[in-house]
Amino acid sequence: MRERGFMSIGRRDFLKAAGAASVALIGGGALAACSPNSSKGTSASKDSEIKWDVESDVLVVGTGFAGLAAAIEAKEAGCDVVVIDKMSSYGGNSTINGGDMAAVGTPLQKEAGVEDSFELMQKDMLVTGKYYNHVDKVKTLVENSAAAVEWCTGLGVEFTKLNFHGGHSVPRTNTTSNAMGADIVKAEVARLEELGVKLTMSTKLIRLIEDDSGRIIGAECRKGYKIGNEDSGSAYFVKAKKGVVLAAGGFSNDVAMRQIHEPRLTDALTSTNHEGATGEALREALKHEAMDVHMDWIQLGPWTSPDESGFGYCPQFCERLVGCGIMVDPETGKRFVKETGDRKVRADKMLELNHTTLVIGDAPTCEKRVVERIMKGGAEAGVITSYQTLEELAAAFDMPKDAFLAEVERWNGFVAAGKDEDFGALIQEGATGIKEPPFYVSKLWPKVHHTMGGLVTNMKSQVLNQDSEPIPGLYAAGEITGGTHGAVRLGSCAITDCVVFGRIAGQEIAKESA
Amino acid sequence: MRERGFMSIGRRDFLKAAGAASVALIGGGALAACSPNSSKGTSASKDSEIKWDVESDVLVVGTGFAGLAAAIEAKEAGCDVVVIDKMSSYGGNSTINGGDMAAVGTPLQKEAGVEDSFELMQKDMLVTGKYYNHVDKVKTLVENSAAAVEWCTGLGVEFTKLNFHGGHSVPRTNTTSNAMGADIVKAEVARLEELGVKLTMSTKLIRLIEDDSGRIIGAECRKGYKIGNEDSGSAYFVKAKKGVVLAAGGFSNDVAMRQIHEPRLTDALTSTNHEGATGEALREALKHEAMDVHMDWIQLGPWTSPDESGFGYCPQFCERLVGCGIMVDPETGKRFVKETGDRKVRADKMLELNHTTLVIGDAPTCEKRVVERIMKGGAEAGVITSYQTLEELAAAFDMPKDAFLAEVERWNGFVAAGKDEDFGALIQEGATGIKEPPFYVSKLWPKVHHTMGGLVTNMKSQVLNQDSEPIPGLYAAGEITGGTHGAVRLGSCAITDCVVFGRIAGQEIAKESA
Repeated sequence: MRERGFMSIGRRDFLKAAGAASVALIGGGALAACSPNSSKGTSASKDSEIKWDVESDVLVVGTGFAGLAAAIEAKEAGCDVVVIDKMSSYGGNSTINGGDMAAVGTPLQKEAGVEDSFELMQKDMLVTGKYYNHVDKVKTLVENSAAAVEWCTGLGVEFTKLNFHGGHSVPRTNTTSNAMGADIVKAEVARLEELGVKLTMSTKLIRLIEDDSGRIIGAECRKGYKIGNEDSGSAYFVKAKKGVVLAAGGFSNDVAMRQIHEPRLTDALTSTNHEGATGEALREALKHEAMDVHMDWIQLGPWTSPDESGFGYCPQFCERLVGCGIMVDPETGKRFVKETGDRKVRADKMLELNHTTLVIGDAPTCEKRVVERIMKGGAEAGVITSYQTLEELAAAFDMPKDAFLAEVERWNGFVAAGKDEDFGALIQEGATGIKEPPFYVSKLWPKVHHTMGGLVTNMKSQVLNQDSEPIPGLYAAGEITGGTHGAVRLGSCAITDCVVFGRIAGQEIAKESA
Repeated sequence: MRERGFMSIGRRDFLKAAGAASVALIGGGALAACSPNSSKGTSASKDSEIKWDVESDVLVVGTGFAGLAAAIEAKEAGCDVVVIDKMSSYGGNSTINGGDMAAVGTPLQKEAGVEDSFELMQKDMLVTGKYYNHVDKVKTLVENSAAAVEWCTGLGVEFTKLNFHGGHSVPRTNTTSNAMGADIVKAEVARLEELGVKLTMSTKLIRLIEDDSGRIIGAECRKGYKIGNEDSGSAYFVKAKKGVVLAAGGFSNDVAMRQIHEPRLTDALTSTNHEGATGEALREALKHEAMDVHMDWIQLGPWTSPDESGFGYCPQFCERLVGCGIMVDPETGKRFVKETGDRKVRADKMLELNHTTLVIGDAPTCEKRVVERIMKGGAEAGVITSYQTLEELAAAFDMPKDAFLAEVERWNGFVAAGKDEDFGALIQEGATGIKEPPFYVSKLWPKVHHTMGGLVTNMKSQVLNQDSEPIPGLYAAGEITGGTHGAVRLGSCAITDCVVFGRIAGQEIAKESA
């Protein structure tokens, strides 16, 4: 039976669903509110008679790569720092990704003899970003990328593999020893502990507080917050004399919010993100006249499986197979897209087909390219299945057998010739094709992955208002910001973005007079 | 000599230019401010001790299709109405377009025997809009489109021609007798005069004023304002007991603002818009917690000529030739794009080529399809040039002669066969190809034309805040709003949008208790 993924409706239904959701949404009213933030706070944002529960120099909102980097830098520069996170465990999305940092001129890259340049990485980001990127942000990221990797190394992170991600002109992705973002997050948290900064978890930002001049001087929070219950916890006021750094991540899991900007992203699509990836902190900044940009560029991951929730095992299986294994439409048994193309091209094609597709690799290919932890975990989770023959594989997914077998032969011919005549995929060096069993398969169905848009910030990570002026006392870094990645984020540039601009936020906010 | 249009720089320089502009922009500070609005107003937006210069029920900002429609409806519903516009003459962009209104089921369409439906027009808008459209807005527009045309007819507007615009499945574009938006604007202004509403021109919105509950109760303006001099005029406070309707148009001419959202739109690109098409009213609403959407979808018109400023004659020459005449790249003498494709596809291709291209039609084709006023005016202005032979034409534009002649032959073959093998352009019914002199030519270079994005409004034209709730007392209609057109506006749907939602704004605001 053809599984239609989570989209068990056709394109026309897609529209109906989007329309219905839209009506509920735009019709207005509390019913349509975005991710719940019903606790509107105790009073207006400007409040000169607040009784502060804690007074500090800097308040950092969020414990992902960016927030932790900002906190470390601010603390090392001599600030008192309070770090809050609405979740009960730290790290957010930063913990659950593949630990890949793109950078120019790192030790790994030099050892591999790769020739690279700032201009080349900048070009790659701009081409993928469709030239929507704020060029000075790209430049700053690229020029500080190696330093960011080095900074992580200084915290104890080991980068052990250089990978070649789609969209990059050369291999420049530095992957951590466990191929997990958690490697970096843990090292950052350890450093903060050394510095004497505790994380105040289960504490949610409710509203920013301004003084009479419009400067951000602190926040009302909710301490003891439990996600899912907006009335949980109790009011907790944090004074931040130098200001607030918003590093609360993106809004991929904020179904109502993402549908405003891109209606097709209904709840028929799940997300790779952790539960807390919702946009209330972003919206709170916008309520204080911050400017947003590129909010409708929401990246789908085309390498996820409907057989598991969240990010899961599949991405790190699928992405190691692009350009050596193939992706097929089970309805035709044939390839349907350039596997090494950018995420948007691939995800859009999958949504267009509107049913799950398959990624397939043979035994030698998987053994050589896919991390063992992924093969094992994926198999145990039932996400990666295996077949002794291609015929068996075809039968298992109800594929037209002859067409599929012919397609595999065709692909193997392309691999031998070093050229993909059908889709122009980049054949990986050393690729051998699909020949030796067992044959490994994952189903693919896109998930919402990353929100490129967000707050506009300058080179000091200061949040800009509608007149392009910094809002005094307000900084931001990481996925909550927008502009750096343009329309489509180039893979493995996110962690670099977080570390570079998170560090800058911490360094710059420290310079504020309290 | 190959004219490189206004982009006398290559792609790489494009990036430099964008980067430089970006640095100046994002670097922050007053230097980078968007369209000048340096007069920040006399005090904070909430002010309970204002001495009002005039007290009214409704303040309408803008005298284009939408603002005038809102004013008429509000007045007819019994409201006192003040209408302001920062320019010295009314109409803004509404006066200078082609007077084309897309609608389902109008008299013109029925007379022509065209079969159409709400679903079909909705589908056309969604397909062109890449499904970013807020579907309920599309539905409301489509279902009210014929009524909007009828309403204009009731004001005295004559729609005399049914046109078939690119991207529509069937002919449904109702064009005014003079093929000018001014036909509609003048009729609206005449109606307002009958109703006793004078337009308060040269009066610019500076800031919206809220009461203590956050309701919009009026505005501080600058009366006697002269565009280009932000210190001109004097403070003028308008109380609006029921609220304010923002119908101030788009921001195509706001170079700084458009570059934030799409950096490639530097000042190397001019605009079809009137001088006042800048975004300060939009930004002012955002300062009051309004939500914006799709700000980075900025439409270029691919049918403009670098030989004239603004909209000019060329669009109404060029668009009548799609699918019967051709567009060529003078460097190759060959076609380069699907002439009947959507605006974005065409404009992006032109920007990619980065030099002017040509649109060409022969005498019988132009005589049959292009309005005489346009042929004459275009010739007098030097925008439409003519040649007795194709060889002469090729020489005039420095084109490879043989390649060009062969391409014309090839095109004529496609026309005869009824199928464009190269680009899939829709061959127009009755097209005869390019055969009989004189041969008419315009140069093409894209201009910034329409900003799809803007304020999010509901079906009552109420402006929504960051929590998707209506901001009390604040309405908006027309190009200042976003969501209806999605990523790419389908041609001739703008006037319909303005009239439908402008009327709704006026009707709904009238229901507010003062």
